[in-house]
Amino acid sequence: MTRPTPFNVRRVASIGGGPIGAGWTAHFLARGYDVTAYLHDLAEEPVFRGIVDTAWISLEALGLADGASRTRLAVTTDLTELARDADFVQESAPENLAVKQALYERLGQLVPGDVIIASSTSGLTMTEIQARCSTPGRTVVGHPFNPPYLLPLVEITGGARTDPGAIAWARDFYQIAGKAPLVLKKEIPGFIATRLQEALWREALHMVANGEATPQDIDTALINGPGPRLALMGQCMAFHVACGAGGMATNLDQFGPALKLAWTRLKAPELTQELRDRMVDGCNEMAAGRHFEAMAADRDRGIVAILKAIREAAQPAS
Amino acid sequence: MTRPTPFNVRRVASIGGGPIGAGWTAHFLARGYDVTAYLHDLAEEPVFRGIVDTAWISLEALGLADGASRTRLAVTTDLTELARDADFVQESAPENLAVKQALYERLGQLVPGDVIIASSTSGLTMTEIQARCSTPGRTVVGHPFNPPYLLPLVEITGGARTDPGAIAWARDFYQIAGKAPLVLKKEIPGFIATRLQEALWREALHMVANGEATPQDIDTALINGPGPRLALMGQCMAFHVACGAGGMATNLDQFGPALKLAWTRLKAPELTQELRDRMVDGCNEMAAGRHFEAMAADRDRGIVAILKAIREAAQPAS
Repeated sequence: MTRPTPFNVRRVASIGGGPIGAGWTAHFLARGYDVTAYLHDLAEEPVFRGIVDTAWISLEALGLADGASRTRLAVTTDLTELARDADFVQESAPENLAVKQALYERLGQLVPGDVIIASSTSGLTMTEIQARCSTPGRTVVGHPFNPPYLLPLVEITGGARTDPGAIAWARDFYQIAGKAPLVLKKEIPGFIATRLQEALWREALHMVANGEATPQDIDTALINGPGPRLALMGQCMAFHVACGAGGMATNLDQFGPALKLAWTRLKAPELTQELRDRMVDGCNEMAAGRHFEAMAADRDRGIVAILKAIREAAQPAS
Repeated sequence: MTRPTPFNVRRVASIGGGPIGAGWTAHFLARGYDVTAYLHDLAEEPVFRGIVDTAWISLEALGLADGASRTRLAVTTDLTELARDADFVQESAPENLAVKQALYERLGQLVPGDVIIASSTSGLTMTEIQARCSTPGRTVVGHPFNPPYLLPLVEITGGARTDPGAIAWARDFYQIAGKAPLVLKKEIPGFIATRLQEALWREALHMVANGEATPQDIDTALINGPGPRLALMGQCMAFHVACGAGGMATNLDQFGPALKLAWTRLKAPELTQELRDRMVDGCNEMAAGRHFEAMAADRDRGIVAILKAIREAAQPAS
């Protein structure tokens, strides 16, 4: 057994010199890990270090872990060296299936025993990526959101040949490493967050294509409308809290018919009793017995703090 | 001419005792206006005043205009009295077409001359609402985002018989009154922000219906993924800045093929040269010559401020 417990990870191997690989490197350094970064070519190193240095400004502002330091970063172009001491591998190679398959074939042999290998892929599935890997059981998707050193989300999913224990390990490790892990119930294209963002994005493109809105209109609407609330409260709880004591049940009963209207080009699903119950039960679990007025007050306090923070961040630095 | 200039509005008439009407009342009071609020029944007054008082906590925290006071609120159940001294009318009556049509028939006669009447409707069009109004030229939609005392967005659109000057007046007035007005190019169902939100919401319902995600998963993904960024930067500029010096052009050229993938149930529009140009030109205009590294640094500074604000707002009050 060469896989450490999630608490005992000391050295993270980060593959890739682009914004995602460099962003992950900065994140793990800031959380106090040793990091070995693999670059395809040392010519990439100045840009790579530039991204880490830029990220560091924000990471310091948010607070570093004890002992965190950029001096604990080693850079290599040797995959064998990278793999040797890795307690965990975060792979952020180019988003190209042939490249990833060849890489996982090598990593499957080079990375010791059953050390977890996680891919930052946003568009490929682990079932595809692990196709030529001789040790696919320890390979998972660990998909961050850009910029990966600031946004906490990591979506986790396995491929057809992934060991369920690998998924549980990755979830625990990301949690310990300061991220917000989300294990997917199914391996779906676009995962959850990108899929939601993509639905919004496609509707935006339709509006621009039809002359109904400009890109400026889209951004103005988002920043001044749903944006500040969405930093604080997901769309389910936003509707739950907005509907008073009746919560999500009131929302669905009252606005259910509106789902048939042509608000967006995306057809809504049939609002079955089962879907209704899942939505209502989920929101009630999240509310955990808190009264809607208390939740609305928390929401307002949060939005006020966010609006003030945005206002202050927009001031020129003194 | 009874319509004041947008700068000379003194008394706002706010119709409706629900969360939207009461929220608007609180907003206009906080910005230093006299407000007359129309309630259908005085029995609604305690709940109405409760919403105003709750909103006031947040409005004080954000900063009141000089002279702003809740003592400048008058409540009435008499539409004639409401209309008499109104310099501007914000209507937030129940979302029912027959109710609104009857109301606009009366308001069209009672509200002096060409004073602007704006509807908070989220789901009806002004063309429908103004159908029985004898003075439709001064009726517009002024659609807020919930909670209306905190989120700045107001989407403005006219109906078929609205005078273009009324739309321009409403835009200027909302701007002066501390809002972020957005004039729609066309009268489309759901306007812009709700339409974008609805696309995301429908995709979320599909995922829950298919057992791909729970409501908790949806909210976790939004809060920890796109949320904090969307408070600061719309989706167009988020992609523009994330793609380095190539900006939106790189995004569309690189990810254009992915628009054909089944990421969400919403079919993407054809990525024509014209759509590509509109997106790229719009983003370049918003960037206004700023280098992407400067925009990314601003984004990061803003996200850090937001994450810290959320963290602090979550602490129990001392």
